[in-house]
Amino acid sequence: MNYCSDCGQKVELKVPSGDNRERAVCTACGIIHYENPRMVLGCIPVWQDQILLCRRAIEPRHGFWTVPAGFMENDESLAQAAARETYEEALATVEIGDLHAVVDVVQARQVHIFFHATLPVKEFGAGIESLETQLFDEADIPWQDIAFPSTTFALKTFFADRARGERQVHRTELSRRLIRKD
Amino acid sequence: MNYCSDCGQKVELKVPSGDNRERAVCTACGIIHYENPRMVLGCIPVWQDQILLCRRAIEPRHGFWTVPAGFMENDESLAQAAARETYEEALATVEIGDLHAVVDVVQARQVHIFFHATLPVKEFGAGIESLETQLFDEADIPWQDIAFPSTTFALKTFFADRARGERQVHRTELSRRLIRKD
Repeated sequence: MNYCSDCGQKVELKVPSGDNRERAVCTACGIIHYENPRMVLGCIPVWQDQILLCRRAIEPRHGFWTVPAGFMENDESLAQAAARETYEEALATVEIGDLHAVVDVVQARQVHIFFHATLPVKEFGAGIESLETQLFDEADIPWQDIAFPSTTFALKTFFADRARGERQVHRTELSRRLIRKD
Repeated sequence: MNYCSDCGQKVELKVPSGDNRERAVCTACGIIHYENPRMVLGCIPVWQDQILLCRRAIEPRHGFWTVPAGFMENDESLAQAAARETYEEALATVEIGDLHAVVDVVQARQVHIFFHATLPVKEFGAGIESLETQLFDEADIPWQDIAFPSTTFALKTFFADRARGERQVHRTELSRRLIRKD
């Protein structure tokens, strides 16, 4: 951030009075511009015993597989964000269920949140951000070609819960360094 | 947002190519400025059977009681944010435990996230954003003077769980209209 988004003048980095960390503060109007982590919302869409995955048509991780997920927008709930992303990426209308996993991705300044979800009908397809979408049995999940560590965490814990016949909310903190280099 | 925080020129509201909602787009450099909901992180600090609350020294809701909570910052985890806020507002070093509640506050463009927490020692006090801090038995919680509906939700579900002797992660969506007018 170089300029004030309110008045267009230069900002400077300084610790505002009563604060304890540097912020971008406007040199003209004095407004403080806070920057905060963003939420990525997704779900694990289930049809019978299969999971719906999308192969990414965009960077980062073009060509790799993921559950439907993306940045939460203003004016929507967590569940609405997860359902909207699923429609946009996989053209599937899902019923969002329980919270499944909450993942800190500190270095990316993101929190990834995943829900359980079900497909009421077997209808899906590739949205503009996907190359293809496909239902997978657990045995066929392309583990070596999963886009993000948080996706792997969400899927592994999902299958472990299913094997035990119980659900819980899973938490972890992931480093960006876990992303495989290609 | 009126001006581009990158180059200082005017922004205009328009739907970028491949997008489906209006964004602030710079008329000069073309950069798209996304705006997303923010996370408020808090905890329910427990000392023996008592809960630590803070009475707010700042607006909104000056003079009302709340659990320690505030905006998550970049470069910290959810649990670190909850612990930091507790130190800032209640001068207490807590051990953050399980996730307790996740609350959509859509109209405020916020998600409020609360953790269980324990005070390893009985040390606390009023930080600069608090008028006072106090340990409360359940019977003495000042329900009529709680600052925010999400605080009430987090505390009510906490005591209900404790009465049943079990924990779960609670979710709800709250409207701003639930805030009592004074």
